[in-house]
Amino acid sequence: MLPAPFIEPFSPPRRILMGPGPSDVYPEVLAAQSKPTIGHLDPLFVGMMDELKSLIQYAFQTTNEMTLAVSAPGSAGMETCFVNLVEPGEKVIVCRNGVFGERMRQNVERVGGIAVVVDNEWGEAVDADLVASALVANPDAKFLAFVHAETSTGALSDAKALCALAKQHDCLSIVDAVTSLGGVELRVDEWGIDAIYSGSQKCLSCVPGLSPVSFSPAAVEKLKARQTPVQSWFLDQTLVMGYWDASSDGKRSYHHTAPVNALYALHESLRLLAAEGLELAWQRHADMHQVLRHGLQRLGLRFVVTEADRLPQLNAVYIPEGIDDAKIRKQLLENYNLEIGAGLGALAGKAWRIGLMGYGARRENVALCLKALEEVLA
Amino acid sequence: MLPAPFIEPFSPPRRILMGPGPSDVYPEVLAAQSKPTIGHLDPLFVGMMDELKSLIQYAFQTTNEMTLAVSAPGSAGMETCFVNLVEPGEKVIVCRNGVFGERMRQNVERVGGIAVVVDNEWGEAVDADLVASALVANPDAKFLAFVHAETSTGALSDAKALCALAKQHDCLSIVDAVTSLGGVELRVDEWGIDAIYSGSQKCLSCVPGLSPVSFSPAAVEKLKARQTPVQSWFLDQTLVMGYWDASSDGKRSYHHTAPVNALYALHESLRLLAAEGLELAWQRHADMHQVLRHGLQRLGLRFVVTEADRLPQLNAVYIPEGIDDAKIRKQLLENYNLEIGAGLGALAGKAWRIGLMGYGARRENVALCLKALEEVLA
Repeated sequence: MLPAPFIEPFSPPRRILMGPGPSDVYPEVLAAQSKPTIGHLDPLFVGMMDELKSLIQYAFQTTNEMTLAVSAPGSAGMETCFVNLVEPGEKVIVCRNGVFGERMRQNVERVGGIAVVVDNEWGEAVDADLVASALVANPDAKFLAFVHAETSTGALSDAKALCALAKQHDCLSIVDAVTSLGGVELRVDEWGIDAIYSGSQKCLSCVPGLSPVSFSPAAVEKLKARQTPVQSWFLDQTLVMGYWDASSDGKRSYHHTAPVNALYALHESLRLLAAEGLELAWQRHADMHQVLRHGLQRLGLRFVVTEADRLPQLNAVYIPEGIDDAKIRKQLLENYNLEIGAGLGALAGKAWRIGLMGYGARRENVALCLKALEEVLA
Repeated sequence: MLPAPFIEPFSPPRRILMGPGPSDVYPEVLAAQSKPTIGHLDPLFVGMMDELKSLIQYAFQTTNEMTLAVSAPGSAGMETCFVNLVEPGEKVIVCRNGVFGERMRQNVERVGGIAVVVDNEWGEAVDADLVASALVANPDAKFLAFVHAETSTGALSDAKALCALAKQHDCLSIVDAVTSLGGVELRVDEWGIDAIYSGSQKCLSCVPGLSPVSFSPAAVEKLKARQTPVQSWFLDQTLVMGYWDASSDGKRSYHHTAPVNALYALHESLRLLAAEGLELAWQRHADMHQVLRHGLQRLGLRFVVTEADRLPQLNAVYIPEGIDDAKIRKQLLENYNLEIGAGLGALAGKAWRIGLMGYGARRENVALCLKALEEVLA
C-alpha cells in the first residue's frame, strides 16, 4: 500500500474578494449550500429545481423553456452553447476583444465550425460596424458570437444592437454573459438573444462551479434539426433536458447526478437577486462603480476602458509606472485579506482588475479597497 | 420587466441516503464546504490543491502525476478519459454489462472512435474470456474500457485481470471507478490501470459534482502524441494541468474558475478516508454488506448478482412479486426519510438498489433500512 498522507483540515481565511471572480459569496448562500444533501430524484429536490429554473429565467429576463444550470463552470456553459448549436462546417462570426472572445473562437474550431474573427483592440467594445461588414461579407454565416462583458478588460458591448444585426442577417446569436448577468442590464427575450451562458461566481455571488444557460425557441429548433450528434454526451442538451423537465407522464430521467448542494447555493443566490430586484441590483453596481471610480482616479489610476464602454462590475486600471504588480497584490492579500485581480492575456503585468460583483458591490468594500490601495501605493 | 418570482428559502429534510448515490455526506464535509470562498489563484488555495492531489493519489493508490478532480460530475470524468485519449478512427473494446458500459460506448462514438462491444448480461461481471477473444479478434484495438463496479446492477468486475489482458494486447485500459473508489479494493499502479475516473458522491461521501481522475504515464504519452486536437476545450487535460500543476517558474495558469467550495469538500472527504485508511474502509464496506445481506435474505429478498461478483456498497435485489415498487419507495422516503434506489435501465421496475457507501456504511443505517423494509413489506 502507498501510505496515507497526513493532512490537516483546510481552514481558509476570510478574504474580501474584489478580483474578476469568484466574488464575495453571500453568507446565506454558504449556509444554504451546507444543508443536508438529498437525492437528485427526490420529489422535494425536483421541486427546488423547478423554482431554480424560474429564478434563472427571471435573472435572464426570458421565458425560454430550455433554461437551466449546467453542472460545471462558465467555460462548460460556453462549450454547451457551441457543441449543441454549431455543426461541422458551419460558419460563426466571432467577435474578439479579449480572452473570452478568443476562447469562443477555439470552441468553434473544436466543434469543426469555421470561425470568422472580428477583432477589436483589448479594452474596446465590439464595434457594430465591423460586425455588420462581416455579416455582409459572409452571407453563409449561421451564428454571431460575442462577449457581453469582457472579464479580461472590463469592456461592455452593446448586446442589443449586436443581436439585432444577427437577426437582420438570419444568424443566431450566442452571448457570453458570465460577468454581465446580475451586474448590468441584460434582457434575453427583448434583445432577441438565442443562446446565452453565465457563471455562478460573478455578480450572482454564488460559489463557483455552475453555469446558467438559456436557449431561445429558434436555438432549440436548430438543435433539434441537427444532422450530426452533439459531440459531447455530458453537455448534450436534448439529454440534459430529460432531467430538468418532466416528461408528459411527470417523470424525470436520470442523465447525470446533479450537483445537489451547489444547486441549493444557486437557488439561494438567485432568490436574493429576485428579492432585491434586477433593476435595483443593476443600479447598485452602477452606484458603487461611481464611488470606486472617483477614488481610483484620485489615486491617479487610469482606466483601460473608455468611460462609455466601462463595466461597473469589473474595473481594469493600468498599473502605474515603476510599481511592482505582484508585490502590491501580495501586500493587499496578506495585510488586508483583500484580493484584486491581475491582468490577463495582453494585459498581464500591465493592469489590475478590481471587481465589484454582486454581494461585493458594497460601500464597505469600496472604502476598504481605496484605503488599502492608497496605503500600499504610498 | 418580467416579474420576480417570490420564492422561499429551500429547506431540505434530513434524509438517510441508501440509494446508488448521492450517499450520506459526512457532516465534516458539509461544514468544510461552507467555509469562506477564497480566490482560485490564492496561494493558500493552491496549497490546498496540492494536498488534494496527494489525497486523490492515495485513494487511487497511484503516483501518477496527471491526477486531479474534474470540475464536474462523474459523467464528465468519463468523457474526460475518452476525449483526451481516443482519436477519430481508433478502436476501443467496450465491455457492457449495465448502463455505464453502454454510456462508455456512446462516448467512444461521439469522439469518432470505433466501439467493439463485449456484452455480458445485466448483473454479471465482465467475462475475461470474452474480452480476451475480442482482443485477439481485434489486434488493431488501442483501448480496453470497462466498468469496475456497475452502479446499475451491483456487479464487480475483476479490474486486475482485465488490465493485465489489456497490457498483453498493447491496449491502454480505461476504467470506470465511480462506485468502486473507497468501497472495494482498487490499486491503480499495481493493476496497471491507464485512465480512471470516479465520482465524489459515492463511497467518498462528498457532495456530488466532482470527478477524481488519473492518467498513467503511458496514457499521458498517448495524449501528448495526439494527431488531432482534443474536441473539448473544457476537458482538455493538457490545458487543465496548467492550472493543477505549477510550471517550472512556480506559476499556475488560469484555465477555468475552480469550484472552490466543492474542492474544500472533496479535500475533507478524502482526508477522512486517509485518516481511516483505505484497507479499513474496504473492510467496513464488506462487513456492513454482510449484515445487510443476511437481513435482506431473511426478508426473502433475492440478489440480482451472484455472491462472488457482488459489490458490498451497491446491493441490487429483485422486487418481490406483487409489490408496488413506487409505493414502497415512497413510504420509505415519506415515513422514514429513507431513500433507496429504483432499478435503472433493464432493471427498472424489477429491482431496488440499496447503497452502503462511505459514511453511509454504518450499523445504524443497516438496522434502519432492514427494519423499515420489514415494516413496509409486511
